[in-house]
Amino acid sequence: MAEGNVVSTSAELAGMTTRQRRRLPITAVHTGEGKGKTTAAMGMAMRAWKSGMDIAVFQFVKSKKWHSGEEDVFGLFQQLHETEGIGGAVEWHKMGAGWSWTWKEGAEDDHAAKAQAGWQEVKQRLAAETHDFYLLDEFTYPVTWGWIDVDDVVETLANRPGRQHVVITGRNADEKLIEVADLVTRMEKIKHPFDQGRKGQKGIEW
Amino acid sequence: MAEGNVVSTSAELAGMTTRQRRRLPITAVHTGEGKGKTTAAMGMAMRAWKSGMDIAVFQFVKSKKWHSGEEDVFGLFQQLHETEGIGGAVEWHKMGAGWSWTWKEGAEDDHAAKAQAGWQEVKQRLAAETHDFYLLDEFTYPVTWGWIDVDDVVETLANRPGRQHVVITGRNADEKLIEVADLVTRMEKIKHPFDQGRKGQKGIEW
Repeated sequence: MAEGNVVSTSAELAGMTTRQRRRLPITAVHTGEGKGKTTAAMGMAMRAWKSGMDIAVFQFVKSKKWHSGEEDVFGLFQQLHETEGIGGAVEWHKMGAGWSWTWKEGAEDDHAAKAQAGWQEVKQRLAAETHDFYLLDEFTYPVTWGWIDVDDVVETLANRPGRQHVVITGRNADEKLIEVADLVTRMEKIKHPFDQGRKGQKGIEW
Repeated sequence: MAEGNVVSTSAELAGMTTRQRRRLPITAVHTGEGKGKTTAAMGMAMRAWKSGMDIAVFQFVKSKKWHSGEEDVFGLFQQLHETEGIGGAVEWHKMGAGWSWTWKEGAEDDHAAKAQAGWQEVKQRLAAETHDFYLLDEFTYPVTWGWIDVDDVVETLANRPGRQHVVITGRNADEKLIEVADLVTRMEKIKHPFDQGRKGQKGIEW
């Protein structure tokens, strides 16, 4: 735990001032079968953005066509940052759209390679301290499916430099992710309108 | 269940088209001991706002001094609505600040009366179909403490007119609230950084 800047043992914390403890990077995991995992992560990102943090969202699973109200809102945040100097900068990357940096033609259907490319990009950015807040949305799935090595993720998160917050969402988070995280919440489904034959609603579900 | 416009029985749903089922009002409850109840509700409100819905947030517990990044962001949303015609209108009311409509001097410490005044206002607005999306933040507490009658809440929610979404947050949601809701998620705490002696962080916790 002495490598990198991520501190989480009680002994290390005991030697720190309250001010120092307020400036630790957070690793959060939202897991479970219920709704609200991504939505709560978006709410956290919204708050972080307003406090001036640079935000990067990486969506690891959704399809090319998928587009959400949140993506539009974070686009507005980026505009407000550029034009009014409010909040931090925002980047939004989608695996389903082939990511936004580089992706070669003809590889659209190789989901494992895409997931790995996404993770390698995140890893490089963490090493370079590119952003302040990373939302790795639905990131538990490529980890569960073995497309991304969980030990690589844990080591990268535990040893990342500086004060970069990372929030991971998705069902069935690997025990090792839960172990490395500081804040883990399980969203449990008690009742869902689809159970009763209802349908998803614009502005509510997407 | 035939009163009002809120439909939730399977029999009633069976007679509706998919389009009709997509236009039902949602009653959501976020409960449990974990984090993310309010944050996920704010994320929902953000998405609803972007889709053009008028949003009203009622905070039932926080103190007068409490102010959050979310409140600032929703202030920006209201500005964007006014100046650019983006999204819906936003109102943000705090019980701790004596609400924003009317509150008489000298009654600052009567929390039960304040909570009741907040609920009566919400009730009137629901009857008048004033907003499209109501966030009743930390509303479970005054209900648990008996300051607001749960049967009154259930009856009001079940019989509200039109297509008004209501999201309620707070621990220990009354069974009757869970019964009347369509979407209930319990946020369960698996791990929290405060457990390890960490401190709340600006941009993350508030």
